[in-house]
Amino acid sequence: MRKSIATVSVSGTLTEKLEAIAAAGFDGVEIFENDLLTCPLPPEEIRLRAADLGLSIELYQPLRDFEAMPEPDLRRAERKFQIMERLGADLLLVCSNVSPRAAADDGLAAEQLRLLAERAAGHGIRIAYEALAWGRYVNEYLHSWRIVRLADHPNLGVCLDSFHILSRGSDPIGIEAVPGEKIFFLQLADAPILAMDVLQWSRHYRCFPGQGDFDVAGLLTHVRKAGYTGPLSLEVFNDHFRQADARRIAVDAMRSLIALEGSAHPAEAPTGFAFAELATAEDPAGLRVMLTALGFTRSGVHGGKPVELWEQGRARLLLNRTGGGPAPTALTAIGLESPEPADAVKRAGSLLAPVLPRERAPGDAPLDAIAAPDGTQIFFCRTAQPYGWREDFAPGEPAAGEITHLDHVALTQPWHYFDEAELFYRSVLGLAPQEGLEFPDPYGLLRSKAMTGPDGGLRMVLNLAQVGAGQTPSQHVALACDDILAVARRLRAEHPDLLLPIPGNYYDDLEARHEAGPGLRGLRELGVLYDRDEDGEFLHLYTVTVGRVFFEVVQRVGGYRGYGAVNAPVRLAVQHAHAH
Amino acid sequence: MRKSIATVSVSGTLTEKLEAIAAAGFDGVEIFENDLLTCPLPPEEIRLRAADLGLSIELYQPLRDFEAMPEPDLRRAERKFQIMERLGADLLLVCSNVSPRAAADDGLAAEQLRLLAERAAGHGIRIAYEALAWGRYVNEYLHSWRIVRLADHPNLGVCLDSFHILSRGSDPIGIEAVPGEKIFFLQLADAPILAMDVLQWSRHYRCFPGQGDFDVAGLLTHVRKAGYTGPLSLEVFNDHFRQADARRIAVDAMRSLIALEGSAHPAEAPTGFAFAELATAEDPAGLRVMLTALGFTRSGVHGGKPVELWEQGRARLLLNRTGGGPAPTALTAIGLESPEPADAVKRAGSLLAPVLPRERAPGDAPLDAIAAPDGTQIFFCRTAQPYGWREDFAPGEPAAGEITHLDHVALTQPWHYFDEAELFYRSVLGLAPQEGLEFPDPYGLLRSKAMTGPDGGLRMVLNLAQVGAGQTPSQHVALACDDILAVARRLRAEHPDLLLPIPGNYYDDLEARHEAGPGLRGLRELGVLYDRDEDGEFLHLYTVTVGRVFFEVVQRVGGYRGYGAVNAPVRLAVQHAHAH
Repeated sequence: MRKSIATVSVSGTLTEKLEAIAAAGFDGVEIFENDLLTCPLPPEEIRLRAADLGLSIELYQPLRDFEAMPEPDLRRAERKFQIMERLGADLLLVCSNVSPRAAADDGLAAEQLRLLAERAAGHGIRIAYEALAWGRYVNEYLHSWRIVRLADHPNLGVCLDSFHILSRGSDPIGIEAVPGEKIFFLQLADAPILAMDVLQWSRHYRCFPGQGDFDVAGLLTHVRKAGYTGPLSLEVFNDHFRQADARRIAVDAMRSLIALEGSAHPAEAPTGFAFAELATAEDPAGLRVMLTALGFTRSGVHGGKPVELWEQGRARLLLNRTGGGPAPTALTAIGLESPEPADAVKRAGSLLAPVLPRERAPGDAPLDAIAAPDGTQIFFCRTAQPYGWREDFAPGEPAAGEITHLDHVALTQPWHYFDEAELFYRSVLGLAPQEGLEFPDPYGLLRSKAMTGPDGGLRMVLNLAQVGAGQTPSQHVALACDDILAVARRLRAEHPDLLLPIPGNYYDDLEARHEAGPGLRGLRELGVLYDRDEDGEFLHLYTVTVGRVFFEVVQRVGGYRGYGAVNAPVRLAVQHAHAH
Repeated sequence: MRKSIATVSVSGTLTEKLEAIAAAGFDGVEIFENDLLTCPLPPEEIRLRAADLGLSIELYQPLRDFEAMPEPDLRRAERKFQIMERLGADLLLVCSNVSPRAAADDGLAAEQLRLLAERAAGHGIRIAYEALAWGRYVNEYLHSWRIVRLADHPNLGVCLDSFHILSRGSDPIGIEAVPGEKIFFLQLADAPILAMDVLQWSRHYRCFPGQGDFDVAGLLTHVRKAGYTGPLSLEVFNDHFRQADARRIAVDAMRSLIALEGSAHPAEAPTGFAFAELATAEDPAGLRVMLTALGFTRSGVHGGKPVELWEQGRARLLLNRTGGGPAPTALTAIGLESPEPADAVKRAGSLLAPVLPRERAPGDAPLDAIAAPDGTQIFFCRTAQPYGWREDFAPGEPAAGEITHLDHVALTQPWHYFDEAELFYRSVLGLAPQEGLEFPDPYGLLRSKAMTGPDGGLRMVLNLAQVGAGQTPSQHVALACDDILAVARRLRAEHPDLLLPIPGNYYDDLEARHEAGPGLRGLRELGVLYDRDEDGEFLHLYTVTVGRVFFEVVQRVGGYRGYGAVNAPVRLAVQHAHAH
């Protein structure tokens, strides 16, 4: 299906918006009236710009408060038709009336809309009538369809908007009752479920399909069954998107439509972590001490690059000694176990992820890698494969220790781009988002969302550094083990300075919350934190931060599925205190 | 009354919070449990810190989900009592149960609370029971009082919270039915009226009294009549405050209580503008051309400083050629006509505004000045007074032109400090806030609120540069005139480069919206914008920006009371385009 987007969905001046939208590969745009009003170019010039960029102008929007009035304001409508003719737009969105002067009279609404459609026909223009979720009398899509049917004019049809339909909890199956040729336009938006005034919800919190809680894909199924052949057009009002880079948001928007259509290249989802790569331009001595203290050994060195392989069980860390800058230690890449790496890269590329060049020395294993929105490099690997990536390091046997594998990695996303990251990991890697959480931090709030693979094998956590919490080191690698107390005891004995100290007040409260069994009593001395849910228990500890990264060691007991969220505020406060 | 604040209301670690709270002059604090848990200091040490700072610990909060359960969790309560003893706190907040396991049984709730109070008494601790607005069964303050009465224990009373009472629309007059000695604690918070889930509203949007829409003062009257003698304690959860500077927010909090109590020094409100001062360290030639083009003449020069007085009618501008830096032209000070400048400064000082030193040369008029939160200097003056400030300039006659006086000034507030500014101008200058507005900007949103004096004589606009809209020059001086078309014609003829160009599309739309009378038709050529309301019409134009300031010329026709808000998005878009 053709892909379109309303100009209001991205930031910038109208010309900047059009350029960003075209660059992302859209076929067309809806011109939002306010974007036209504030543009210094006359409509004829805007028409030429769009045409030069290969964009069709699918819709002009909106005409408000028109129908079911004591007198229809045809003068105003005629003025809009003139502007549309200059613009080369032939479809006008009329949204349902919110004026207190409107009458609850379907017959009158239909009569005036028929009159409007008749006038529009004289200009070669068609009218798409949309039920706003907060329309005074018409706020259900089937109601707008009844009025359109009653008006019975070839130049009058309905515009369906997934937000207006799904925010009210209406059943979208009724769409199938509308003949496809009478669905003149389809606007798509997703949104998180929020208990708030629907107008404010719509104006500030819409997002692209796949970024919210609505079943936009289900709605699309009904629209297709109805026989709709027009474009899929995104109309999203979002406070973050309107402050973000237009080109980046336009790509994010296009990715959402490709994912929604299911037209991305197929690939099996990654099943776990092959490795995590830490890069540093500083002296890596401190990091080596940390890895050794955690039970890792350096099992190999890359044949041609200053990269070391550190292993323990199936937990693998690459230490990349990038030269050049004073960049502190950072988590720069992750390797994912993929059944077919080449397919995984093709899928990512078809979802507009930048595919990284396969620069490598002769004899090195092939690299299938992409860049995530936050800049993290993602490598798709088959570690067990003969001549795989691990053999570039000519490694010895991995060390045996308490740590068995990587439990999860937590990546910090830039402000305004959290939704983009969520959709990226969801669509490219097939991860499912868990419930979003918010943690108080001494200087702000931290937004956090876990994403997990189909079998729970791959776990990632996305953090958003809210303003004020920006200095928090929230990028980390979590290592799974079967005996966290042994790890903690060794760290406490040999490297107490590497353990993040946990306040005694935390343990006083922990003992108030839970019956103090023998297990709990030892935690205070070892700086181990505790949580439990219906399915099991969770024990975890944190190291201090090295550069921009810290480590977590976790032990899952029973079927515990969380990440110790209840303890995050304690960790954040201690990290701040430790940093000062 | 004693003044207290919950530690959750300001940012930082617990020790930072206590220091900021003490510095602002509070008598006591509520210790929020999470602040204790994340603090590395043991409770005994926190107790000492507070005592050293002169702060009493008024309350420890909260114990949750205690009453009306199948079994009361006395073990957990005992643990809290132990922590409170170490902390030296003798009042525990118990908030009404939200657990699905709670029973709708007032008798059971009372019985368990009585048991809790009895145990508390053994530790010298009292219990303040509070109805959360979202409590499962107990969510009205009179309901919590019924249960307390039923429990009938000397160590059990109610805690009243203005947010929980007013957010539900409960009538606070019922407070007078509660004996003062059974009101163990009073928590105060204001909030803007928002149609959203009350829990989210409470956790993110509370603000200090006088910053929201609640009648907190009215509630306080009832509490006083009931005979309450405890502290006024602020408990505010606010996303901006938790990211802001703790010392600044603590002062803001204290100001809100002083204003609420009505204990500030009395002073008559300013009646209008004496002057606006523009400071520049650049060559002032461009600014002089601008002022001349607007019809001002330089009527005087200060005897001892590089300051020029420019006048037209009662509109007076000071051009301060500050040396030193490369600072671009900025609006740095305003002079306000005050019946008694000394009283105005005393009032501001009693509301914690920094009073500026009265540095001046012998023979200069006295200066009564304070600093606003955004750094703007505010001078209180009586221009008509003999030997007043104007005589320092030995001025000639003011020029006669179309411009008659200053209509308003618009000041940009820093991110996170909008509420502080609103309360400052409201309490210190007696200005009343109008409805808050939000304007789309090509790169974000601009929050804006007009503040007006009792007779409408003094008008100011506070703008908040939202992220992304930060580069927008939104600081400006609006000049009132009786014939804007004459001003526009002269500017257009003599200095067309100084007029902000308005897109033709704006006028196409204006003509679609309003019948094109003869008045409207001339506007397009002159770049004049138009608005109207029920009471009158508004014509205005903008100049280009000089440094960080621009000018607006406005003409109010009839009783129009707004600021042309409908045109702000056009202005913002053009300013962005012009700046690039």
